[in-house]
Amino acid sequence: MTAQAFDDRPPHFDELLEARERIHPYAVLTPVLQSDELDRLAGCRLLFKCENLQRGGAFKFRGACNAVMSLQAEEAVRGVLTQSSGNHGAAVALACRLRDIPAIVVLPHSAPQIKLDAIRRHGAEVVACGVSQAARDAATASELERRRAAYVHPFNDRRVIAGQATATLELLDHGDAIGARPTVLVAPVSGGGLLSGTALAAHGIDPAIRVIGAEPEGAADAHASLESGERVTGQVADTLCDGLRAELGPLTFEILRAHAERILLASDTETVAAMRLIWETLKLVVEPSAAVALAAILRNTELFAGHTVGVILSGGNLDLDWLPWQVDPIATAVDA
Amino acid sequence: MTAQAFDDRPPHFDELLEARERIHPYAVLTPVLQSDELDRLAGCRLLFKCENLQRGGAFKFRGACNAVMSLQAEEAVRGVLTQSSGNHGAAVALACRLRDIPAIVVLPHSAPQIKLDAIRRHGAEVVACGVSQAARDAATASELERRRAAYVHPFNDRRVIAGQATATLELLDHGDAIGARPTVLVAPVSGGGLLSGTALAAHGIDPAIRVIGAEPEGAADAHASLESGERVTGQVADTLCDGLRAELGPLTFEILRAHAERILLASDTETVAAMRLIWETLKLVVEPSAAVALAAILRNTELFAGHTVGVILSGGNLDLDWLPWQVDPIATAVDA
Repeated sequence: MTAQAFDDRPPHFDELLEARERIHPYAVLTPVLQSDELDRLAGCRLLFKCENLQRGGAFKFRGACNAVMSLQAEEAVRGVLTQSSGNHGAAVALACRLRDIPAIVVLPHSAPQIKLDAIRRHGAEVVACGVSQAARDAATASELERRRAAYVHPFNDRRVIAGQATATLELLDHGDAIGARPTVLVAPVSGGGLLSGTALAAHGIDPAIRVIGAEPEGAADAHASLESGERVTGQVADTLCDGLRAELGPLTFEILRAHAERILLASDTETVAAMRLIWETLKLVVEPSAAVALAAILRNTELFAGHTVGVILSGGNLDLDWLPWQVDPIATAVDA
Repeated sequence: MTAQAFDDRPPHFDELLEARERIHPYAVLTPVLQSDELDRLAGCRLLFKCENLQRGGAFKFRGACNAVMSLQAEEAVRGVLTQSSGNHGAAVALACRLRDIPAIVVLPHSAPQIKLDAIRRHGAEVVACGVSQAARDAATASELERRRAAYVHPFNDRRVIAGQATATLELLDHGDAIGARPTVLVAPVSGGGLLSGTALAAHGIDPAIRVIGAEPEGAADAHASLESGERVTGQVADTLCDGLRAELGPLTFEILRAHAERILLASDTETVAAMRLIWETLKLVVEPSAAVALAAILRNTELFAGHTVGVILSGGNLDLDWLPWQVDPIATAVDA
């Protein structure tokens, strides 16, 4: 991961605007949906930014596209390597295909088949590795050394964070257009790239916007990190939210410490209930990792009462043969 | 059904534009989505008009809202009565709640629980009846006589047809905005209100646009009617597409005979496969009745090759505990 000069500062607001321009020809301007029924349940006005409708079925395409498209030609020529629990890998694969350069994805062998298929469909090479962060890092470092490809980290990368921020730029613009700019934003947090981008976009526009993360109880490292003021690592994730098992990186921790009000928690049972509510009322296929935001809101309605709340529905990639309300979510959360 | 003067002419194009203005404060301007993967499968460019994201989860709100909002005050005061296999009933109930007048819905006792719940949630009164068209008509006539409410037929009504047409007006505008106006439109056909509106909107803008219906093999009365040139009635529907069991009315038959190129058929197995494809690639919850359009396209790709094809995804109301790819669709299609 030292195969290139690494700029570890948060992106400036201007870079978020540049990212928006850069990805515009490739990314979907995703719709923002509402539901009177969900508003009644939550006691606030909810604006859902539908990143499950983004290319590749997740917000991850924004950051990956911004990073891949911003590479200099000489950086891009040997391809792009990344590690990913799934959606980011597919996003890098797609962005590389659009730029016609090779993509290599280091992926834990526990990744869902649907995400593996998505990566291969975009023509990327998959390198399997162990599930722990240490195993992923070791495999990534070894492959980088060997191939001398450009590295795009799934979240601890200012270009990726700037890309993820574009969802919030669009969401706030939409709020302005309908006369209801969100005063609070909620996004899931895993490695923290989405929430960091959300925060930088929001506070670049209005520092008074509250930015809140949502995290599974079984993978609460970001919550613990912000509570303690030190980045907590090495915990074993135990959640069915397969997209939320990563830990904050140094850069995302720094950004969230400065910009995030707090991280709310939700149990997998609450998340599955919220996911089903979204399917039923918004008619959207979202994955568990996306539903954790609504679950956290419904568990803490007093924090949102009377507000307009922007919610990032982060993705919709899951196996339709395996719906969590048809099985015991605890018994199936065996992977860590 | 003679409780009011009945205007049995097709609506003029101006009335479609008026409907668009009338429902604008209430209806969702639904997004149009695309999928490279589905385009590859179909061999054409598909633009999906997402009426599953409409209020009430189906296009039906457009027609119901136009009819209810266009009533004179003296017509509206005793409320609105309708018969419906489900989505139209909920749509009338919602429109009446928005206008603050009573709604009465005559509903076959076989209607899915989710649709019954939706109707009651909007404050409407439900009158249960038998499943056959004759039983529905008898119950409707008797209730109309007793209550002297305004009648809004689910499809054989020019105000309803004008409302359904607004989805196509929006879809064609979207096509113009992205430089890809559809040259073919495909919509499901049951009673024919949606397809009639689709056809009148399309041909009001450009008579060269091809308008094609999609119908389950097990409820192929519209196909038989257009083939024979006479309205076929009295068939027993046998399909899991619970929204597509009605028969054409005199008005919709007349419009489709003049404007529809043909009606394509799909088996329930093909429709379930298409439904799953839509869930997986577009990340949208659509009901079987909505997926029949894509199923018909995939079965007849030679008719669409190279075209830009607008597809109306008509609705997304179904029971998430009962997903058709987890059961034998033939064995479960017991209701007629």
